[in-house]
Amino acid sequence: MDVALGCLDIGGTKVLAALVSGDGAVLATQRQPIASYDPLTVAEQCAQMLTGLAQSQERRIAAIGCSVPGPLDRASGIITSSPNLGWRDVPFRQMLQERLGVAAVIDDDARCAAIGEWWRGCARGIAHFMYIIVGTGIGGGIVVNGAPLYGAGDTAGEIGHTTVRRGGPVCRCGKAGCLEAVASGRAIAREGAEAVQSGASTALAARCEGEAGRMTAEMVVAAARDGDPISSQIVTDAGQWLGIGLANATNLLNPDLIVLGGGLMLGASDLLLPPTLGSLDAHALPSARGHVRIELGMLGEQAGLIGAAWTAWQSLAKRPR
Amino acid sequence: MDVALGCLDIGGTKVLAALVSGDGAVLATQRQPIASYDPLTVAEQCAQMLTGLAQSQERRIAAIGCSVPGPLDRASGIITSSPNLGWRDVPFRQMLQERLGVAAVIDDDARCAAIGEWWRGCARGIAHFMYIIVGTGIGGGIVVNGAPLYGAGDTAGEIGHTTVRRGGPVCRCGKAGCLEAVASGRAIAREGAEAVQSGASTALAARCEGEAGRMTAEMVVAAARDGDPISSQIVTDAGQWLGIGLANATNLLNPDLIVLGGGLMLGASDLLLPPTLGSLDAHALPSARGHVRIELGMLGEQAGLIGAAWTAWQSLAKRPR
Repeated sequence: MDVALGCLDIGGTKVLAALVSGDGAVLATQRQPIASYDPLTVAEQCAQMLTGLAQSQERRIAAIGCSVPGPLDRASGIITSSPNLGWRDVPFRQMLQERLGVAAVIDDDARCAAIGEWWRGCARGIAHFMYIIVGTGIGGGIVVNGAPLYGAGDTAGEIGHTTVRRGGPVCRCGKAGCLEAVASGRAIAREGAEAVQSGASTALAARCEGEAGRMTAEMVVAAARDGDPISSQIVTDAGQWLGIGLANATNLLNPDLIVLGGGLMLGASDLLLPPTLGSLDAHALPSARGHVRIELGMLGEQAGLIGAAWTAWQSLAKRPR
Repeated sequence: MDVALGCLDIGGTKVLAALVSGDGAVLATQRQPIASYDPLTVAEQCAQMLTGLAQSQERRIAAIGCSVPGPLDRASGIITSSPNLGWRDVPFRQMLQERLGVAAVIDDDARCAAIGEWWRGCARGIAHFMYIIVGTGIGGGIVVNGAPLYGAGDTAGEIGHTTVRRGGPVCRCGKAGCLEAVASGRAIAREGAEAVQSGASTALAARCEGEAGRMTAEMVVAAARDGDPISSQIVTDAGQWLGIGLANATNLLNPDLIVLGGGLMLGASDLLLPPTLGSLDAHALPSARGHVRIELGMLGEQAGLIGAAWTAWQSLAKRPR
């Protein structure tokens, strides 16, 4: 029976499972809403999804790669504290291994997506590359000198928590002025809610039916598309802050390529990208700016699965490059 | 006759020359004021210094490594535009080779100093490391995954030009709000001059003899040591901005170690380091902060020479590690 890698991408609301071949081709995928926030229930769900895929494809699973919202400890396979899942000190790798009977690895979701785009997406063959997820939050993954960067404690890439606005809005991480606190989907929703609460004349009041607490980034983006000036300004501001984040990464790392992904960016790049690029141009050193291309991710939500597959391959000491 | 590496460190005011052995030991050094800002004159000065050292030590020079203020192009050996030297498109590597008859390499001064501390200083054996020069300007060099990071165009490490204060003071590079524009010796001198010009009651007026244009960072540091409140605040502010720069590098790179060097930092660490570390703690993710040690450089002004020696070794394809 042919083998395949069993790949998982666990998010705040969904579980993606896939079988991936040794050269990074996605053979089959399945998507389900996350069954529960109980880790044992999620591990069971993952095992059933992968087992079902293996049976339907007549493949034996050689190893498991799992993308999860961090922070986590790769060596022990423990999810140390995931705000997105509400998990603390969960030995999720072991839970998967016990249920599926093969070796498993877990890694941070932004790094998995970065590795996916680098292995089989738009960053193939690139030596110096950064991937930035711009969604509800902001995360990142880095490739330098032709290899993924994990750092001293597996947390490299946390561009969302670099400080761009000292004394600015408080971030979910507790610090003030993080890039995530001024340029993420959550930041856009907060600014939209504040506009409604301030009594400003904006189409956003109707969109959230007068309840500012229900505001989402999608509502602000939709209102901006319809020409609401306050919403347009909110999205433009977010893009300008994001451009500072890109410029700082550009100046520090001098990458060949920055790839932007994440639901907010991919869904609103028409509005978000122009102010982002304008701000990047204004804040990057010309010598570094001249080397870096900016692209949107090409693998969509499969990036994390494919990166998890690469990570699983590495764990088998059969690096396929 | 034994061989040695001929090493040079060219700054805005001085030329350092040294003979360095293949294992990074400094055999002999010489320091001279820079003879001129004419590149040919400086190349001649460098050749005479190295030739003199080689004769006195009875060594043959096997290769030359030269640390220069960038930006430069390593591949062609051309200093493309150095504000510190006032040079544009100077083929300095070729000038050295013609005069000394052996292969030469040139590299950025901050990267050379980083490599020096990593090869033979306080960052020996460290996989993930950043060196930050805090002097008249601010520069940096990065080691990741156990190797120096040059980046796509040899400009990696430019932490001095990351934006920490959007819309802040204009930097020498022309952009606003760079770390260098708020935390360097030049920034401290500017703030001191502005305090005097504003008519504020400060001991700085006497130090610069009423001429604000003569203000230096050294005057502000000395006044702060004597208890001048405005001067203390200026130095503290610079340290707090510097801490944001360190935090951003920590969050992005997750290093084991950040080493601080440069004349301002080494001369005023008693005043500058406490606010720097406080701000680092406030702005770094605890998970990344927990992994990084902060140290002062241990090689002093020999760091760049020793890093240049490593670079020269590399050019001989005899990497000595």
